[in-house]
Amino acid sequence: MIQEIKGGVCAVDGVKAFGVKEGKYGLAIITAKGNAAGVYTKNKVVAAPVIVTKENLETNGGFLEAVIANSGNANAFTGEEGLKDANAMAKSIAEKLGVDPKYIGVASTGVIGRKLHIDKIKEQICTVLPNLAATEKANDEAMKAIMTTDLVPKGFAVEAQTSAGNFRVGGIAKGSGMIEPNMGTMLSFVYTDAEVRSDILHSALKEAVQKTFNMIVVDGDTSTNDMCLLTATGKSGVVIQSFENTSLYEEFQNALETVLKELAKKIAKDGEGATKLIECTVAGAYTEDDAIAASKAIVRSPLVKTAIFGNDPNWGRIVAAAGYSGADFDQSKITLEMSDGCNSVSLVSNGKITKNDDATLDKLKSIMAAETIFIKMDLGTGGKETATAWGCDLTYDYVKINADYTT
Amino acid sequence: MIQEIKGGVCAVDGVKAFGVKEGKYGLAIITAKGNAAGVYTKNKVVAAPVIVTKENLETNGGFLEAVIANSGNANAFTGEEGLKDANAMAKSIAEKLGVDPKYIGVASTGVIGRKLHIDKIKEQICTVLPNLAATEKANDEAMKAIMTTDLVPKGFAVEAQTSAGNFRVGGIAKGSGMIEPNMGTMLSFVYTDAEVRSDILHSALKEAVQKTFNMIVVDGDTSTNDMCLLTATGKSGVVIQSFENTSLYEEFQNALETVLKELAKKIAKDGEGATKLIECTVAGAYTEDDAIAASKAIVRSPLVKTAIFGNDPNWGRIVAAAGYSGADFDQSKITLEMSDGCNSVSLVSNGKITKNDDATLDKLKSIMAAETIFIKMDLGTGGKETATAWGCDLTYDYVKINADYTT
Repeated sequence: MIQEIKGGVCAVDGVKAFGVKEGKYGLAIITAKGNAAGVYTKNKVVAAPVIVTKENLETNGGFLEAVIANSGNANAFTGEEGLKDANAMAKSIAEKLGVDPKYIGVASTGVIGRKLHIDKIKEQICTVLPNLAATEKANDEAMKAIMTTDLVPKGFAVEAQTSAGNFRVGGIAKGSGMIEPNMGTMLSFVYTDAEVRSDILHSALKEAVQKTFNMIVVDGDTSTNDMCLLTATGKSGVVIQSFENTSLYEEFQNALETVLKELAKKIAKDGEGATKLIECTVAGAYTEDDAIAASKAIVRSPLVKTAIFGNDPNWGRIVAAAGYSGADFDQSKITLEMSDGCNSVSLVSNGKITKNDDATLDKLKSIMAAETIFIKMDLGTGGKETATAWGCDLTYDYVKINADYTT
Repeated sequence: MIQEIKGGVCAVDGVKAFGVKEGKYGLAIITAKGNAAGVYTKNKVVAAPVIVTKENLETNGGFLEAVIANSGNANAFTGEEGLKDANAMAKSIAEKLGVDPKYIGVASTGVIGRKLHIDKIKEQICTVLPNLAATEKANDEAMKAIMTTDLVPKGFAVEAQTSAGNFRVGGIAKGSGMIEPNMGTMLSFVYTDAEVRSDILHSALKEAVQKTFNMIVVDGDTSTNDMCLLTATGKSGVVIQSFENTSLYEEFQNALETVLKELAKKIAKDGEGATKLIECTVAGAYTEDDAIAASKAIVRSPLVKTAIFGNDPNWGRIVAAAGYSGADFDQSKITLEMSDGCNSVSLVSNGKITKNDDATLDKLKSIMAAETIFIKMDLGTGGKETATAWGCDLTYDYVKINADYTT
């Protein structure tokens, strides 16, 4: 059984956190000793902190003592100097914590192509370190410190009750624009007090990220800085010993996916300028890739996103987006339904328009006025594969925020 | 030598046109007897008129007598009834022109998933047919009749002077939203008075479309109705006899590409809500596909598009878009420059930021205030491949237009 609990990363035994935010510039530190795994952006332009963290985890046997993350400057496309700065961040807190810098994860988010203000960061380290704590409030400060255009801090934690004992998984994340993660979100730091080997952590994390962070789209831009780190403190005493489909591994995977999915939805809902969350499930696909392609194309489509912003019952755009997604299907077999979670309206059934009268379109309009819109499409191929993607509407405020970001 | 001339499609001998626009609903007819070729949307959801036109050209030996195009309703996702309506459009003008309906091209643009008002169209056919003419004014009426959210009618024509004699190529197009053609634009009708076999026409059209219409992005949505038809009336007496690299075929290809490129740029510039045209050239790629992927990713990126709208000198987003495009390159080798056609500013040279001081960013801001912004990136791979893509900025008006389209 899985149950939501409070406290974010600090809900997990062995984790301390804190953060500070001064204007555009924020800094969070999370300490937690344990086996660890990471997934990172697939952008060819990789930010310096991503390079440093990846190398650390690849060469240190999969272990972290702490994570340091700054907001306001991405330290991306900054060349040798950027690498020096990212290493300096690691070294600076490693010294103060009395650990080797190779056990530090470094993350950055903000403007690309600007030199990091390393002195500012060192100053903020001195403010944050003495305040590290295992409290809900400390978690909140860390969440806020990594926000950029985010309006809402993002954290989630669960407790899993299993026959082997209880364990917890908690995480925080930030992300609002430049969001179509290709294997991480902007930044997410996740912790568990289960005891898990780093190879098992890596496998579980990859699988969970695939179904959660990789299924959200705000604007289709994949960041240079995406990173998701998972650390297991082992403090609960529950040991996940095997990859194989033991029920305990499944319970761990399930708890991890639950946390990542909630964080992913929070990111999509807080997409830059967004007023609504879109959840799109595509079923009846031949392959999972087809289901993923169609569901993501729908939540990525600027035309679908603007229609949802304006409560415009222009559902043809949803069908068109599936059509160009690359997914294999026959238009004469598809089924489309939209709902607000309570009321639903059938728009297409087995390729035939259900009803396009004013009453149907009015009902659709009222459904589209909800805060969360559910789109359900069945491709009707005879295949059984399914996927769910999350996105948000495209609004005046998205344009406003991004037409004037650096200045 | 190629020279711009007036008159759009009516600049070509053997072509008559006219159109009518009443509120949202418009109808254009173009008559021209000759060998013909078409390219169509690759969207899995294919509109009825695309199906009918494609079948006509595939079974009639590649020949057209006339094209009929309506705006206001896409006749897409309309099932058997939609096919009946598209065929009725063809039959209705075929009867009046005294030709076989299989020699008619049918095209539609507008809302998806709504039944065509075939009676309205028949009424408009009666208005348009008696007014068909070979004049510039008649061409203008046809251009206007196919517009939907377009603000500007789009036509272009050239005369090519060759040793074998002079010939002309003229075309019209419409398109403003749902624009990332995957082999056509929304709608484009192109004519030449050269005499060309339909297989040669098809080959020339495919090649030209690849470098022009397929290189524009307004919002990344590929329409269900994209279609580009090319008809050769042969009236100039200039005969293009071969595919091979004869200089005459090259001159024809060149004239055709010139017309299509101008139409493509007009579509990008008139993108929904757009205030600026973006031309992005990516050079130094290993493969042409890499150059295409990178240049299109840059003009497609909502973050690049909003930054250009707001004159925000946030050039890191351009580098990031190339990074996630799938193109192969090393970030330490790239070069980036932006210009307004007169003044230019170097931002990155061989992977190093040229200068990021206030003077550079201010110069970049003033360049970004121009009506056409040129982005030049060299991937520095040692490869020689290059590609140019066109797009537009993303503005409040794009959101406004699309949040309230059907209502």
